[in-house]
Amino acid sequence: MKRMGMMIGIRADQIEEYNRIHAAIWPEVAAVISACNITNYTIFLKQPENILFGYWEYVGEDYSADSAKLAASPAMKRWWAVTDPMQEPVATRKGGEWWAMMEENFHMD
Amino acid sequence: MKRMGMMIGIRADQIEEYNRIHAAIWPEVAAVISACNITNYTIFLKQPENILFGYWEYVGEDYSADSAKLAASPAMKRWWAVTDPMQEPVATRKGGEWWAMMEENFHMD
Repeated sequence: MKRMGMMIGIRADQIEEYNRIHAAIWPEVAAVISACNITNYTIFLKQPENILFGYWEYVGEDYSADSAKLAASPAMKRWWAVTDPMQEPVATRKGGEWWAMMEENFHMD
Repeated sequence: MKRMGMMIGIRADQIEEYNRIHAAIWPEVAAVISACNITNYTIFLKQPENILFGYWEYVGEDYSADSAKLAASPAMKRWWAVTDPMQEPVATRKGGEWWAMMEENFHMD
């Protein structure tokens, strides 16, 4: 299992709507996330910096393949078409990233 | 169980040392964290912004009492005397906070 942390900005005027849609995530989106071996997924918000932190646990064997499968899913494409304009990715993200991945530097069970 | 997310800055010149000491956290510090009902604790780092994101799961019944117990522990006081000067708390943290707590706005198992 691999723990993954990621960050992105959110537009101040979109926070309420972002929270609203995430309180009722489309079932087909939740299904494809689970099918891609992502579990225990939480998003946290810090205001007034308007930073989102995502945390999930990847329980599959091939993250690269599973993230490609996620990205190819019609449900995710529809979802991201809604959420991407709400977000403001950090300028320092790596090529191919939207949310910028973070480095795990401590863990205890 | 309550999932908690928190953020703080880290001094660029302290990152290497911060990682080094967290790779060998004192056993008495790990013991008191566990005794205070904190589990699945991970810290992530984002460079070059030098932001730390902490995630843990609180499995006790009274977080206020457990966090007071944590803060009163001699082991934690010694640990924080080392780590506090490495960190740069965000200006927008609430009264009594060091790490700034974040709001959970999405979760799926």
